[in-house]
Amino acid sequence: MRGRFELDLYVILDRTASHGRDLREILDGVIAGGGRLVQFREKEWPLRRCLPLLEDLRRRAKQAGIGLVVNDRLDLALAVEADGLHLGQDDLPASVARRLLPPPMFLGVSTHSLEQARQAEREGADYVAVGSIFPTATKPEFQLVGLDLLRTVRQTIAAPLVAIGGITADNAEEAIRAGADGVAVISAVCGAPDPAMATRLLLERIRAARIARTKTAPGK
Amino acid sequence: MRGRFELDLYVILDRTASHGRDLREILDGVIAGGGRLVQFREKEWPLRRCLPLLEDLRRRAKQAGIGLVVNDRLDLALAVEADGLHLGQDDLPASVARRLLPPPMFLGVSTHSLEQARQAEREGADYVAVGSIFPTATKPEFQLVGLDLLRTVRQTIAAPLVAIGGITADNAEEAIRAGADGVAVISAVCGAPDPAMATRLLLERIRAARIARTKTAPGK
Repeated sequence: MRGRFELDLYVILDRTASHGRDLREILDGVIAGGGRLVQFREKEWPLRRCLPLLEDLRRRAKQAGIGLVVNDRLDLALAVEADGLHLGQDDLPASVARRLLPPPMFLGVSTHSLEQARQAEREGADYVAVGSIFPTATKPEFQLVGLDLLRTVRQTIAAPLVAIGGITADNAEEAIRAGADGVAVISAVCGAPDPAMATRLLLERIRAARIARTKTAPGK
Repeated sequence: MRGRFELDLYVILDRTASHGRDLREILDGVIAGGGRLVQFREKEWPLRRCLPLLEDLRRRAKQAGIGLVVNDRLDLALAVEADGLHLGQDDLPASVARRLLPPPMFLGVSTHSLEQARQAEREGADYVAVGSIFPTATKPEFQLVGLDLLRTVRQTIAAPLVAIGGITADNAEEAIRAGADGVAVISAVCGAPDPAMATRLLLERIRAARIARTKTAPGK
C-alpha cells in the first residue's frame, strides 16, 4: 500500500449513520480513540455542499497525522488532496482511476465476489474491500457475501484486504481470523454514543485478533 | 477560449430529452448538421454506466473533429480526455476545477446572476453560460433570468457568453442580439425528429444573427 497508512481499523464517516451529529465531531472522536484511517462517504449531497465539510475533515486529519480517503469521487479526492480514493463497482473503474491519481494517492475498491477482487488487484488497487461480511442496514445495496468469500479472496490475492459490512467490536475478530488485514466500520463508530470509546474498543479487538492469528498460524 | 472550438451552437446531449433514442444517434445527427461543439450531460446514471457510452461519443466527436464537453464530473472528463468540462453552481467550484484540469481542457460555468457570472470569469471559466433565458421544461431547476441578465452580463464581463434555457431556432436570434456568442440547446436538437436538420437550421439562424449584429452595431 502506498503512503504511510496501516490497515487495521478503517472508519467510514457517513452523515446518514451519525444520528445528526457533525462528521467533524465523529472524526475528532476517531482521532481521540487512536484511529488512523478514515473515509469520507456522502452519497446524497451535491459536490459543492460536501466541499467545505471535507476541507475541514482534511485539515483535522492532516493535523492529527491520520489518513483520509474519499469515497466514490475522484474529483473531490483531487480537490482536497486526499490520501486515498475508494471506489465501488458503480464508480470509475480502478484502471482508469489509477491512471488519473497522482502517485502518492492510494486506491481502494469495494468488491463482492472473487472475480471483482481479482480484477481490482489486477487494475492497481492498493487495498481490496470485501463485503458485506455480516448483515448491515447501512449498505443494504451490498449483497451479503459472508466470511467464506473473505477466506477465498485471501487465498487468491496478495493485496491488503479490508472486511466491510456489519462489523462491530463483537465480530471484528472473526473477520481478521478469516484473513482480513483490517476492518471497515460505519455504524459501529458513527452511530456509537461515544465514537472515541468505540474506536478504542475496535482497535483493541482488531489488534488482539491479529496477534492471535500470528500465533496460531505462523505461516500467515 | 482554450482549444480550437468556436462558440456558435452548443448541443447538449441529454438522454432524458432524446425520446429514447441513443445519444450516439443524436451526435451523428449533430455532426451531419454541421455542429462543432457538444456536451455530455447525464444526471442519473452511475458513472460506471456512463463511461462506455461517453467513450463512444468521445471517439465519434474526435473523428469528426468536433469538441466534446463533459457536464458536472471532472473525473469523467479526465477519464475520456474531454475537450472541456462544464460546471453548474452545485458542482466543483471553477477555481478548484481550473487548478485540476490539464491546461488544454477548457472550462465552462452555468450562471444565473450577474454575481455568479463575474465569479465564474474571475475563477478562470473559459466561457460563461447564462440562463434560463426562456422558459424550459428540461432544466426546471434553473430560474428564468431572461434576456435582461444576458445583456447585463455582456456589458460586464469579457468571457465568451453562451445563452441557455428554452432556446429554439425561433428565438436563438434574440439571444445573439442580446449579446450571446453562442446558444446551448437540449430539446431543440435532442428532442427534434431530425437532429441533423435541427442543427443545420439553428446554425443558420445563429450565424445570420451574428452577421446582423455586426452590421447594426459595428462596435460590438
